[in-house]
Amino acid sequence: MRKNYLLTPGPTPLPPQVTEAMARPIIHHRTPQFQAVIKEVSEGLKFVFQTKNDVYILASSGTGAMEAAVANLLSPGETALTIQGGKFGERWTELCAAYGINTEVIEVEWGKAVDPREVEKKLKSNPEIKAVFATLCETSTGVDTDIEALGKAVKETEAALVVDAISGLGAIDLKTDEWAVDAAVSGSQKGLMLPPGLGFITVSAKALKLVETSKNSRYYLDLRKARKALQSVDTPFTPAITLIIALSEALKMMRQDGLENIFLRHKKMAQATRSAIKALGLELFASAAPSDVVTAVKVPAGIDGEKLVKTMRDTYGVTIAGGQAELKGKVFRVAHMGFIEEFDIIAGISCLEKVLAQMGYQFTLGAGVKAAEEIFLK
Amino acid sequence: MRKNYLLTPGPTPLPPQVTEAMARPIIHHRTPQFQAVIKEVSEGLKFVFQTKNDVYILASSGTGAMEAAVANLLSPGETALTIQGGKFGERWTELCAAYGINTEVIEVEWGKAVDPREVEKKLKSNPEIKAVFATLCETSTGVDTDIEALGKAVKETEAALVVDAISGLGAIDLKTDEWAVDAAVSGSQKGLMLPPGLGFITVSAKALKLVETSKNSRYYLDLRKARKALQSVDTPFTPAITLIIALSEALKMMRQDGLENIFLRHKKMAQATRSAIKALGLELFASAAPSDVVTAVKVPAGIDGEKLVKTMRDTYGVTIAGGQAELKGKVFRVAHMGFIEEFDIIAGISCLEKVLAQMGYQFTLGAGVKAAEEIFLK
Repeated sequence: MRKNYLLTPGPTPLPPQVTEAMARPIIHHRTPQFQAVIKEVSEGLKFVFQTKNDVYILASSGTGAMEAAVANLLSPGETALTIQGGKFGERWTELCAAYGINTEVIEVEWGKAVDPREVEKKLKSNPEIKAVFATLCETSTGVDTDIEALGKAVKETEAALVVDAISGLGAIDLKTDEWAVDAAVSGSQKGLMLPPGLGFITVSAKALKLVETSKNSRYYLDLRKARKALQSVDTPFTPAITLIIALSEALKMMRQDGLENIFLRHKKMAQATRSAIKALGLELFASAAPSDVVTAVKVPAGIDGEKLVKTMRDTYGVTIAGGQAELKGKVFRVAHMGFIEEFDIIAGISCLEKVLAQMGYQFTLGAGVKAAEEIFLK
Repeated sequence: MRKNYLLTPGPTPLPPQVTEAMARPIIHHRTPQFQAVIKEVSEGLKFVFQTKNDVYILASSGTGAMEAAVANLLSPGETALTIQGGKFGERWTELCAAYGINTEVIEVEWGKAVDPREVEKKLKSNPEIKAVFATLCETSTGVDTDIEALGKAVKETEAALVVDAISGLGAIDLKTDEWAVDAAVSGSQKGLMLPPGLGFITVSAKALKLVETSKNSRYYLDLRKARKALQSVDTPFTPAITLIIALSEALKMMRQDGLENIFLRHKKMAQATRSAIKALGLELFASAAPSDVVTAVKVPAGIDGEKLVKTMRDTYGVTIAGGQAELKGKVFRVAHMGFIEEFDIIAGISCLEKVLAQMGYQFTLGAGVKAAEEIFLK
């Protein structure tokens, strides 16, 4: 007998309401029954994205939705600004390159957050910039971006602000409309508590104009098709029916909780995790703006980071994430996002303590759990 | 209390093994546990596609996989030949147009099948053709294409043969390697008995060369990325984990049955359906090569085709499909594909008889069911 705990930044654990929905017999998508689901999730997604604009559902991973933003908003030869402080910021640059878009890059040291004034400066010195690509929570480093400040910097220019909210949506605040975000994309396997397989994108009126004029080759990810279909409560291609029905269950839960409560829960879990990490004598990887979505922790000297993650998972059933790309073996990451609550965090910290102790790391057993409990008790 | 029967050409009903798999707790995709699943489904997909080449799994609908074929095999300004005998043949032409590819089109009257000699002729008179796009089963008309004959026509040329096997794979024969198919694409919600959300594509050595030289903008659907990832038993982007685990269950069932038995079951169901249709005095829409995947039937004079489909579905729980595009209201379509067997067909025919009788259509009650039974008894 072994119980499994999933504390990874996507996929996140599934609520029983979601798994139950996926085990139902399938229905056809071109029926009044499924149209009712489309209507419901459309409203729910507007609520979560905090927007009045339509949110389009793609049968894709989050990267498909990111590509939809690049493919629909820009044209070959145009210029974009990307903010690169981790693997997912780099993905924006790679996507732009794949579409023949010239890219100005703001390199942010991994673990640090972008200074919005740098974005302002770049926009002033490069008025040809058509879009700014940012990342709400850079999952590879556990750092959040101040999207509100970026919105202020971009709003007065011709450029559109595009935010990768794949990690973060439904976990931390993203006021799409109020903060003047022109396109926000997300995926299903994070704050929305679903399996991977759905991508989401919403666009502002400003961005919609770019969609209409873009010269990029596109078909499956063409937002003109998605928009036209949604007007008749439909999707342009066969939708991922099961996942969308599960989405309606997840959104119901989120509406019942309310965004404020959801964000507060994530904040507390993050604080507890960070407090535990410090109490264990470990160091956060993020030196600024540590995320309430995922905590990246430096692997201490003398400890094999990959072995730590493997032992927690394969011996004790607690799955956290290792480092990605250049951080492989150098950090481990504990997610506190989606259908995770305080006692999952306690379990995760306890398992971390157990394996650290077995690996010969010196600390006071129980110190991490105690520090987390102190936060949760408040 | 009402039981629902799904006789639509995608989605098709889900076996209990598949729904059970989807209700399991989710696992992380970058784990040995999920790598074992990738290995297993990779072998299973080769079996179903009847190929020795790798099959790439996309988190997308079938159209995403079709776009992957166009985006990876061709470059803007090149020429392709499309065969257009229905909505899905037209999709190839639309996709090529979206990518700036010049298209030679063989127009096939809807309900008829392409004459392979026409393809041969076109290839001779247009040696610049780089790819031929065909449809295994044209779901909108219920007509099959003789892919084996097309393979013979294309094989000796420079062109690649690309087959949309979205409807048809795992239901009717497609010997990808033996018939010299260079790229075959499919989707999950048809013969593979899964919900929609997975796209599949396999490419031959001949097609792989085109993948390496294509100048199209692509990222999410880039087969170079998919290929590189699969070499380390991985996917380039977060895969649709739940659907892939469900796929492993569906493929197990298919391997146990064997392709011969599966194709025979589909053939019998199709024969029974066609026989029932004729016994009811109705007429098939396909005037040539009626498919063993789906049967399209002309709505008889004096009957409201859309009302027929609606009443069967909303009053009696039997979902068949209406006509698409120019066939809307003119045909109805009964699928006999995937997790459907003889008594589902009997139920479908019986419900059709009931509603036709209620709508005032003149026929001998029971004649359709009897004709189907006679086929199944053989």
